Amino acid sequence: MIRRGRLAGSRGGDVAAFLSSMDADRNIARADLLVDMAHLLMLSRQGLIGRQAAGTLMEALLLMYREGIPKEAFNERFEDIHAGIETYLVSRAGEEAGGRLHTARSRNDEVAACIRIRLREDILLAVEGLTRLRRSLLALSRRNTHTLMPGFTHLQYAQPVTLAHHLVAYERAFARDTERFQELYKRVNSSPLGAGALATTTYPIDREYTAALLGFDEVVSNSMDAVASRDFILESLFAATVLLSTVSRLCEELVLWSAPFCAFVELDNEFCSTSSIMPQKKNPDTAEILRAKAGTVAGAAVTVTTILKGLPMSYNRDLQEINPHLWRGMADTLSGIRLLERMIASARFFPDRLREEAGKGGTTTTDLADMLVCRFDLPFRTAHSIVGRAVALGGPTPANMDTAAREIMGQDLSSRGLTPAGIETALDPVLSVGGRRVTGGPAPEEMERQIMSADRNIEENRQWLETMTGKLQNAETRLIAEAEEAAAA
Amino acid sequence: MIRRGRLAGSRGGDVAAFLSSMDADRNIARADLLVDMAHLLMLSRQGLIGRQAAGTLMEALLLMYREGIPKEAFNERFEDIHAGIETYLVSRAGEEAGGRLHTARSRNDEVAACIRIRLREDILLAVEGLTRLRRSLLALSRRNTHTLMPGFTHLQYAQPVTLAHHLVAYERAFARDTERFQELYKRVNSSPLGAGALATTTYPIDREYTAALLGFDEVVSNSMDAVASRDFILESLFAATVLLSTVSRLCEELVLWSAPFCAFVELDNEFCSTSSIMPQKKNPDTAEILRAKAGTVAGAAVTVTTILKGLPMSYNRDLQEINPHLWRGMADTLSGIRLLERMIASARFFPDRLREEAGKGGTTTTDLADMLVCRFDLPFRTAHSIVGRAVALGGPTPANMDTAAREIMGQDLSSRGLTPAGIETALDPVLSVGGRRVTGGPAPEEMERQIMSADRNIEENRQWLETMTGKLQNAETRLIAEAEEAAAA
Amino acid sequence: MIRRGRLAGSRGGDVAAFLSSMDADRNIARADLLVDMAHLLMLSRQGLIGRQAAGTLMEALLLMYREGIPKEAFNERFEDIHAGIETYLVSRAGEEAGGRLHTARSRNDEVAACIRIRLREDILLAVEGLTRLRRSLLALSRRNTHTLMPGFTHLQYAQPVTLAHHLVAYERAFARDTERFQELYKRVNSSPLGAGALATTTYPIDREYTAALLGFDEVVSNSMDAVASRDFILESLFAATVLLSTVSRLCEELVLWSAPFCAFVELDNEFCSTSSIMPQKKNPDTAEILRAKAGTVAGAAVTVTTILKGLPMSYNRDLQEINPHLWRGMADTLSGIRLLERMIASARFFPDRLREEAGKGGTTTTDLADMLVCRFDLPFRTAHSIVGRAVALGGPTPANMDTAAREIMGQDLSSRGLTPAGIETALDPVLSVGGRRVTGGPAPEEMERQIMSADRNIEENRQWLETMTGKLQNAETRLIAEAEEAAAA
Amino acid sequence: MIRRGRLAGSRGGDVAAFLSSMDADRNIARADLLVDMAHLLMLSRQGLIGRQAAGTLMEALLLMYREGIPKEAFNERFEDIHAGIETYLVSRAGEEAGGRLHTARSRNDEVAACIRIRLREDILLAVEGLTRLRRSLLALSRRNTHTLMPGFTHLQYAQPVTLAHHLVAYERAFARDTERFQELYKRVNSSPLGAGALATTTYPIDREYTAALLGFDEVVSNSMDAVASRDFILESLFAATVLLSTVSRLCEELVLWSAPFCAFVELDNEFCSTSSIMPQKKNPDTAEILRAKAGTVAGAAVTVTTILKGLPMSYNRDLQEINPHLWRGMADTLSGIRLLERMIASARFFPDRLREEAGKGGTTTTDLADMLVCRFDLPFRTAHSIVGRAVALGGPTPANMDTAAREIMGQDLSSRGLTPAGIETALDPVLSVGGRRVTGGPAPEEMERQIMSADRNIEENRQWLETMTGKLQNAETRLIAEAEEAAAA
Repeated sequence: MIRRGRLAGSRGGDVAAFLSSMDADRNIARADLLVDMAHLLMLSRQGLIGRQAAGTLMEALLLMYREGIPKEAFNERFEDIHAGIETYLVSRAGEEAGGRLHTARSRNDEVAACIRIRLREDILLAVEGLTRLRRSLLALSRRNTHTLMPGFTHLQYAQPVTLAHHLVAYERAFARDTERFQELYKRVNSSPLGAGALATTTYPIDREYTAALLGFDEVVSNSMDAVASRDFILESLFAATVLLSTVSRLCEELVLWSAPFCAFVELDNEFCSTSSIMPQKKNPDTAEILRAKAGTVAGAAVTVTTILKGLPMSYNRDLQEINPHLWRGMADTLSGIRLLERMIASARFFPDRLREEAGKGGTTTTDLADMLVCRFDLPFRTAHSIVGRAVALGGPTPANMDTAAREIMGQDLSSRGLTPAGIETALDPVLSVGGRRVTGGPAPEEMERQIMSADRNIEENRQWLETMTGKLQNAETRLIAEAEEAAAA
Repeated sequence: MIRRGRLAGSRGGDVAAFLSSMDADRNIARADLLVDMAHLLMLSRQGLIGRQAAGTLMEALLLMYREGIPKEAFNERFEDIHAGIETYLVSRAGEEAGGRLHTARSRNDEVAACIRIRLREDILLAVEGLTRLRRSLLALSRRNTHTLMPGFTHLQYAQPVTLAHHLVAYERAFARDTERFQELYKRVNSSPLGAGALATTTYPIDREYTAALLGFDEVVSNSMDAVASRDFILESLFAATVLLSTVSRLCEELVLWSAPFCAFVELDNEFCSTSSIMPQKKNPDTAEILRAKAGTVAGAAVTVTTILKGLPMSYNRDLQEINPHLWRGMADTLSGIRLLERMIASARFFPDRLREEAGKGGTTTTDLADMLVCRFDLPFRTAHSIVGRAVALGGPTPANMDTAAREIMGQDLSSRGLTPAGIETALDPVLSVGGRRVTGGPAPEEMERQIMSADRNIEENRQWLETMTGKLQNAETRLIAEAEEAAAA
Repeated sequence: MIRRGRLAGSRGGDVAAFLSSMDADRNIARADLLVDMAHLLMLSRQGLIGRQAAGTLMEALLLMYREGIPKEAFNERFEDIHAGIETYLVSRAGEEAGGRLHTARSRNDEVAACIRIRLREDILLAVEGLTRLRRSLLALSRRNTHTLMPGFTHLQYAQPVTLAHHLVAYERAFARDTERFQELYKRVNSSPLGAGALATTTYPIDREYTAALLGFDEVVSNSMDAVASRDFILESLFAATVLLSTVSRLCEELVLWSAPFCAFVELDNEFCSTSSIMPQKKNPDTAEILRAKAGTVAGAAVTVTTILKGLPMSYNRDLQEINPHLWRGMADTLSGIRLLERMIASARFFPDRLREEAGKGGTTTTDLADMLVCRFDLPFRTAHSIVGRAVALGGPTPANMDTAAREIMGQDLSSRGLTPAGIETALDPVLSVGGRRVTGGPAPEEMERQIMSADRNIEENRQWLETMTGKLQNAETRLIAEAEEAAAA
Repeated sequence: MIRRGRLAGSRGGDVAAFLSSMDADRNIARADLLVDMAHLLMLSRQGLIGRQAAGTLMEALLLMYREGIPKEAFNERFEDIHAGIETYLVSRAGEEAGGRLHTARSRNDEVAACIRIRLREDILLAVEGLTRLRRSLLALSRRNTHTLMPGFTHLQYAQPVTLAHHLVAYERAFARDTERFQELYKRVNSSPLGAGALATTTYPIDREYTAALLGFDEVVSNSMDAVASRDFILESLFAATVLLSTVSRLCEELVLWSAPFCAFVELDNEFCSTSSIMPQKKNPDTAEILRAKAGTVAGAAVTVTTILKGLPMSYNRDLQEINPHLWRGMADTLSGIRLLERMIASARFFPDRLREEAGKGGTTTTDLADMLVCRFDLPFRTAHSIVGRAVALGGPTPANMDTAAREIMGQDLSSRGLTPAGIETALDPVLSVGGRRVTGGPAPEEMERQIMSADRNIEENRQWLETMTGKLQNAETRLIAEAEEAAAA
């Protein structure tokens, strides 16, 4: 119907399918109804549509809102869901009424509004999912503030830490992800409605009113910016990529830790598969696919960047190709957080195995070097060399320590009072961890502090989430109430 | 010297070169001095180093701070600048003093601190550059609130707008870029110092004190997170990518608008080149390269994502490979903003050419359809079809309008009062722009409002910038003062 | 059923959905039937399954081959289509027969075989589509060897060329894309079947026989490589990305050339859309979306790179996440080539507009400089400067040429015989194009040669395509014949 | 000098630096001399330059060829090395001679020629490096055809294989990388010289002659394609990305295998680092950085894709920004292959540790299931379930096997003749590997065959390399001989 006047000739089915955004538009169909209702209320209040036409249209919109959009509106012969719904309205209410809904707007501002409405919901869900995931990590940490394990650098055993220390490192990273989603929320939750094709309209519309009805915090203040910009999408996918790159790191460790040579953890059967031919196998498939999802979302972000780069003002159809990548990327992110949370919560860690490895591989030789510094006032670099040399000689035994000290500084240390017992104490992993009490360290009491502080942070995030969700719900309640009034009029 | 104890055997020059981060470390050499001084002050205050050794070392550090780091410290045989400076200190102050600086820290927390110190400066420079660029765009807009031009969608003439309207759309996008850099600043400006290799240390260090000396807003609260996380780098490069994708859009338009078929603008000779063989050529080379920089920075962001994805805890040497991409990406971003600002400020726009095109190609037929809606109470979809049909018939002449109306709705409109003068008025581009007075529209008075509002926003950003810069300067002043005191002691 | 022995407990529906590859497996369902039949024939010939069980299973497989795979086999509760088909077979033929099909194979080699079978078909379709597209470009070129137009560099008018010259440049790029797909075909068309989970099997299977039945050119010669490698997928997506980056360049020009300021071409209505509110608009939507597809496929390639990077041997579930990106990427590539071909074939170019612009903007000043070199034996750099200066003075009029020559070389050229007529002849665009007769140049007779040569190249590609397609068809014919024999036995 | 005529006004240093390609041009400076000499010989032979001017210029070019390009020519005030060399020539030979070299060419074809000349050398080096790396892998494999180890899927122990089997899987992947570089070589080694700015020239030049002098296999046959296309760069970086993604997988395994919980391999000290504070550490830094290089090169490929996508014909300055990424990407690739080869050749594998793990974790339970199939004619799926159930019961002991069989199929197997000895034999890893003799399997004699076959393949690649290198050397020898003749004339 939109083509009727200007473009003659029919169009091949494959071209229609290629141009149609219908598949991705399922994600914004519900948002489109809200936008239609808000726009209609505004047209009516501004006297741009008669009360009766408005009532007839509103009735049809409310029906779809309550009982679902008819399947016919999603037919791929429509370019998009906006055309699908408009055609349905015209078929139901006649062109006289149905043909008036598109007064003073364009699909360019309409689709931008729909995307923002749906995306803000996904962002709130991401914040919610992150909150749960972080709570699970903290709960597990709380039970493991004394569970020693080897801390890694370069995948080599480095220094003893605790499982709580290791897990809270992830919780802190996810806290920053939460922050990022909170911050970009306000750039998403801004109303482009009323921007028209690119230059607003000569009708006396009220953009602030529709913005308020739809729960937007403000109006995008330049109309060309409103229809042309998709930086909020790029930013959302980038935030998801950062998040999933951390998810991928954690899943890499879950895969590694459940390998037979580590055996630090066993994932719940629900998240594993066996082999079609090897009967003994228990594979950490969910962790592997989660690890791969970082690639999927990073690819989506690259796609959007490549599409946006170099597009002139203002709306170009290239922008449509962005949407399926956005929705897939957000859906993968949301399901990824959710599954990771459950996988963590149900995982069985093996404290004995972790403790067994905690002191292996010389993880406490730094402590030995530090002891030399404190006890004998050696420069750290000298102490480091002595212990390193003793390790190269086969390990920091009293004899090797003496040999090493003589090589490096020309005299042994046993004659200055270094005893086998002193060495042994310095190398004790429990003492090592217990002594690391400075801010951020793995000592149990410091971990308690870190966990409590993280907990407070999560509580703040939860309150923010409640406020934002409440605002959106209130706006929708008001919108529907006004719509019902208009329908009844 | 670090290898001395543990690893025997010499290393081929190509391996050393492959492993060395020295080239990229030029970016953090100055930051490393600050970190060394702060760490030394802390060691001294906590009694972890003698007053004399501290004084000797501090003197050497202050010398480098004032007169530059000696070239020798940058030799590629050192793995990194930290080793280069340490070796220099030892050669100058002896191992007895020089060997003590690395007490209670690791290169893992040291390098993370240096990167954050340098990166926060780049971010402040980005905010400053954006502020200037936005001011230039606003200044140009202020002079062009009445300069009509064709607004584009799909690169087709869509509706008349003004040059100011078009430019402010970019200013608003750059405002969001400013916001993003401001927000990520706080995640960058957090101190990892004291995290040690991954698990802090058993020495009674004071992380809050070094953080304050270095101007950090807070301490990264989990030590493994402090050395393992690079999400703040990913986030910075993503923010730069979003920014440069908008820069690229603007440059695409500058290239297009200076093409002979447009001739809307002439860029200053400084930013253009001629051909080595075609004497007539004046090519917009700077705009072209700026357009390409979006690709460069997007690629850097992909590199960092790919490197981070799937790395287990905590520090892995892969992280080193991230840094050159970060520094190049930020440098390109900063020079890009700077040159774009000057290119915009010196560009010569041709208002007459812009106005000449503003009314072409049917840019005001929407207004004609809108007039039919208002005047004859037609549904918009019907009015849209009539005008579309008249365009297909050769243009919205009175005769074609009647034919079209008869086809679409079975009766003409001239009999209902549609006059040639009425059509002409509806099609006038000056009236069209003047009538688009709703929030965000191109009407001159609304543009004045948008410009004033943007101006206030810039002023807020400028004040934030001043505050942040002031904090950093104060911290450095205090650090140097305490360092001088220690050196004199 | 595969889980039955090893893993107790049921699995949540969302985990099952997250792990299932069913959606993407629709692309390989038909290939899976072929693989099943070939594997069964081999098992039977090697005496690894009884004749009766083989016959029963083959009957069921042939039924699915002829009448389609039952919907039930695609249920998302199955991890993949392999499990879906196996379950169907067991339900139909009993476990006694159905449970034997998976003897001596694993899903790891099975899925790799299926992917390669489907992908080689897509590659052949890509070659076919490219052949058609190139023929269309050549046909259009043949009609336009005398259609002058401005050649561009930096989007500035550079030198006059012809439309044929411009179009054949694209045909040549697409010829290289054809080559790339042909070359990677042999790396795709190699059989992993028989590699088992990673280490083949102790059963005396015959990998060469199944390879021949399935039309593979050879066997992947190391079984771990066979199940672990996906470089052939990466390579395919990279080839698609190179191709689509060229498609995107051509579409950029179609968008640009159909802009009102160019008006060089009008695309057929079928490939355009109008606006929902601006009745005059005719937007090149198909070209815009095609342009964006380069971003989509580039993103898919990044995803696969990121997933593969750093995976240890051999099969990891991460590999599954690659497949949907592959199929979407190839589907977009194939439909993209097809639509571009039709859009080119139906486009209306405007030779008069092109010619009108061909001589504008000083496109022939290089010819003027060249003439000065030949006629007056000037160094080219001197001649270039004189003409450049004359352009800066307002254009290469006889008077400006004299002024410029005096400035640059101290004497005028009119006194040495440079006449107004001489200048005019040198600046004639028709003569300019006609004189560019060297290999690769735009002169009509040279273009005829280029077109004929390209035509021969296409013919060779077509023959290759016929050979490859023939081989695959013969293999399938033989496979089905042997399968029918086995079913009847 | 090039700007002299057309563009007045000076240029800021930062703009010059931003536009200059000088830094990256170091990679093509030598190629530029060859191109200059070939072009000059052609101009002379075609009578387009006098013998004396040609002689003077050639002398200067030969001097630079022999003694190096003077530092001054690399000054950043020149836009590129072409301008630098031309300016040097003019300063040395006067404008009368020096100003003639640029007759009948443009920087657009010149730079494209230089890039191709340099890139083909890098590709030959890549093929050479791959050949060496593959030889090292085969040498190590030959010594380890009997070294049992656990084969992995999902990082779980899957089935026993040998170290040779595992390594040859990588050799085969690198063989495909070799093929890809060989195939793209011919698309790189084609001459764009003579294409001029975009439309060749009216001078009667001889493109085939310069192509032959420069060792090109053929001429790029459409001049616009010759200056506009960079698909050969994209293809090269994509081939490097595929290669490095495999390098990254191998390095991931080296990192993993040298972790303390695996201890399968020890890398040579040369490729490792220790910690600045943890004296016991030996970190696999080279492998880690190599792993990261896949990200670096993938990012470079993304950059080039993003830059190319959507550029109109023909040359645009954006193309310049591609080059530094190309050179860095190729340099990283070449040094990466080289270091990996040496790291592999010097690594110490621990066969006893590998063998110790080979039979752990139920790696031979598939063999047990296979035995049940063969011995008791069970369907594989039934046998798989029985063994899987026995594993879940605690392991495939005779008792558990009976229990499992009763559960799954209602009767035990010991009563049908399954003996403890029979189970034990089936579970023996040596027999398991020895029995996997089908094509591609790990059995020692099959590995011998795979190694011999791979060796022959390497030998073919080596011969190809020799042929290509010989051709280039012969061409250069001829070029210099003709140049010396011209200089002497």
